[in-house]
Amino acid sequence: MVDFIASGTVTSPRGFHAGATDAGIKEKDKDSLDLGILFSEVPCVATALFTTNKIKAAPVVLCQQRLKSGRAVAVVVNSGCANAFTGEQGLADAAEMADLAARGSGISPEDVLVASTGVIGQPLPMEHLRAGMEQIVLSGDGGHDLTRAMMTTDTVPKEVAVRVGDGEFTIGGVAKGSGMIHPQLATLLCFLTTDAAVDIDFLKLALRRAVDVSFNMVSIDGDTSPNDMVLLMANGLAGNATISQSTNGGDIFQQGLDQVCIHLAISIARDGEGANKLIEVTASGATSLAEARLAARAVVSSPLVKAAVHGGDPNWGRIMSAVGSSGVEVVESKIDLYIGNICLIRAGQLLPFDKSSVIEVLRGREVSIGLNLNLGTATATAWGCDLSEEYVTINSQYTT
Amino acid sequence: MVDFIASGTVTSPRGFHAGATDAGIKEKDKDSLDLGILFSEVPCVATALFTTNKIKAAPVVLCQQRLKSGRAVAVVVNSGCANAFTGEQGLADAAEMADLAARGSGISPEDVLVASTGVIGQPLPMEHLRAGMEQIVLSGDGGHDLTRAMMTTDTVPKEVAVRVGDGEFTIGGVAKGSGMIHPQLATLLCFLTTDAAVDIDFLKLALRRAVDVSFNMVSIDGDTSPNDMVLLMANGLAGNATISQSTNGGDIFQQGLDQVCIHLAISIARDGEGANKLIEVTASGATSLAEARLAARAVVSSPLVKAAVHGGDPNWGRIMSAVGSSGVEVVESKIDLYIGNICLIRAGQLLPFDKSSVIEVLRGREVSIGLNLNLGTATATAWGCDLSEEYVTINSQYTT
Repeated sequence: MVDFIASGTVTSPRGFHAGATDAGIKEKDKDSLDLGILFSEVPCVATALFTTNKIKAAPVVLCQQRLKSGRAVAVVVNSGCANAFTGEQGLADAAEMADLAARGSGISPEDVLVASTGVIGQPLPMEHLRAGMEQIVLSGDGGHDLTRAMMTTDTVPKEVAVRVGDGEFTIGGVAKGSGMIHPQLATLLCFLTTDAAVDIDFLKLALRRAVDVSFNMVSIDGDTSPNDMVLLMANGLAGNATISQSTNGGDIFQQGLDQVCIHLAISIARDGEGANKLIEVTASGATSLAEARLAARAVVSSPLVKAAVHGGDPNWGRIMSAVGSSGVEVVESKIDLYIGNICLIRAGQLLPFDKSSVIEVLRGREVSIGLNLNLGTATATAWGCDLSEEYVTINSQYTT
Repeated sequence: MVDFIASGTVTSPRGFHAGATDAGIKEKDKDSLDLGILFSEVPCVATALFTTNKIKAAPVVLCQQRLKSGRAVAVVVNSGCANAFTGEQGLADAAEMADLAARGSGISPEDVLVASTGVIGQPLPMEHLRAGMEQIVLSGDGGHDLTRAMMTTDTVPKEVAVRVGDGEFTIGGVAKGSGMIHPQLATLLCFLTTDAAVDIDFLKLALRRAVDVSFNMVSIDGDTSPNDMVLLMANGLAGNATISQSTNGGDIFQQGLDQVCIHLAISIARDGEGANKLIEVTASGATSLAEARLAARAVVSSPLVKAAVHGGDPNWGRIMSAVGSSGVEVVESKIDLYIGNICLIRAGQLLPFDKSSVIEVLRGREVSIGLNLNLGTATATAWGCDLSEEYVTINSQYTT
């Protein structure tokens, strides 16, 4: 049982508090939150996944060191400045940012993690941070402010919480990301919380699995910003028997965590800059999960598929070509293709289809594309958005 | 010695003739050429490189079979219809297209190659091709018409010829491509000719080398359309001693071929849909050629770098991030970065630079970016274009 909580957020699980302020870091955006803290009443078991970019922002370097302990109590986050490519000064600033947050909440700086998002190559405006940090007031529904303080080019805050297993425990999260269609530099930041008691080894495994079916299936194309980070903190205040690989609660915890991550990942895809539509691509019949994932991502990442969806152009050839160039095993005479629930191609043969019905599907706010390779049993789903604006005019009208 | 020939084209080498007609295949474009033939007076030694897309268009399948002989006399090409994802009918149509071309020129159909570009998944309008083929008149300067007949979303024809080694022999070429920034589906077609006598083994090697430093260094990101093809035909009418791996003429032939291919590849990059600028990225100091190539392509392919160049925004952090996420070995404290000839970063340290000078460089029609990883001696250059139009407004103004 996974139940979504109305207005759920990262502070929905027991014992988590958050707050944010306008510290003046985003100079151009007056009156917008840009500095926030997430805090747990008791120390958490914690793990995170980080960017694979060889150039890592200072906060990522700091978090990677601190999370070796498997423990954290708080996170401090700012938007407007990524503190990336800032050298030794950047590392010192990230550490001071944690110190400042710890001072206000009376905990050890070593238990405070740091995240930043924004422009690369500029030093953190520490004066603003020092002054701003003192203004932050933590509260039990502060998650709503926290998620706003993480936004850069995001147009909507992204937050969710679910109650899992007869209300036994709660999992919540906030995220920001997807500045661009291929968000190479649209930092993905995601903070996940739960009041479940979870063993660190299982927590790591569960986060990896959840990210693989969610954030890793949004059209990010393997490119990552220097700041990407998905953090999961479990404070145990639900009082459940600690979940580990050898206990029963793992499956339901995983389901809840997957749902939270998928919800946030879809929110990110939907909020791509200039995006008008959510595109969901499911690839089935692949010979392996890796192949299914690759095929689904190839289609949802294709600029020409995205442009065709934007223009309501049933240019199915672009979908075929995207799959063909993905490296996935493909037998042309076996493929089935669906747009919405209309089958356009069966066993490689183009069926007579009603073009206006397909156009109607493509004109919706959510467009699903289904592809069956008919070579195996593996299935995967990926999410992305359309390519909008004048830039795509030529491609979205190519066949029409 | 490699000398560019004024108004040079694919029919500049001795013994090559071409012609084209408006066969009505591109229905929407009245009065535009869409069917052409390239023909050699004598049989050629011939080789080609083809798309790596798992879904291959019928003409590619046909050419792959026919080029096993290492011999060709003519090529027939149409635009407006790709004859891709067209099954058995597509193969039959491609073969008939060759037959029709052979009939007019009195040669064996087996010596005729076929290429198509345009919309995927529609059958070739054979009635139009049959009628159109009879209208084609071959001539010694027909290369100019041939290149026009290959255009789809291309805005300018792409053609060039060079005279090599004291005028001993000539190499020419025509190309089309680059419909989109990441031209997954903008078919790359290129026909190269030479009157040099060249051994088939060396011809294959030379073409592979030339494509590696030219078309493979345009921002194509490894994605390929079902129709991509680069063909090289050598008819030997220059009367030179046959060039092979063990003879001396190979180096100068390679230089000439490289220049022709680089010229055409740059023309394709410059003509990206909506493109306003040519971007040239040189990565040096890499530990291997593969790493240098990867780094240069990563930067020139980055949508955010392209957007920044378009907006004249000196957002060097995006260049660093693109390199960092490319998979190339990077040591942040060693990198040098140049925009034009202005050094922004030396040994990982941001230098005080005159922002207005950098903006002036970025506002030019040709923008060069230089990156020295300072880890080795390998160098590579890649070409691409800016990301223009409203779609990029948000990203091109992100830091300004």
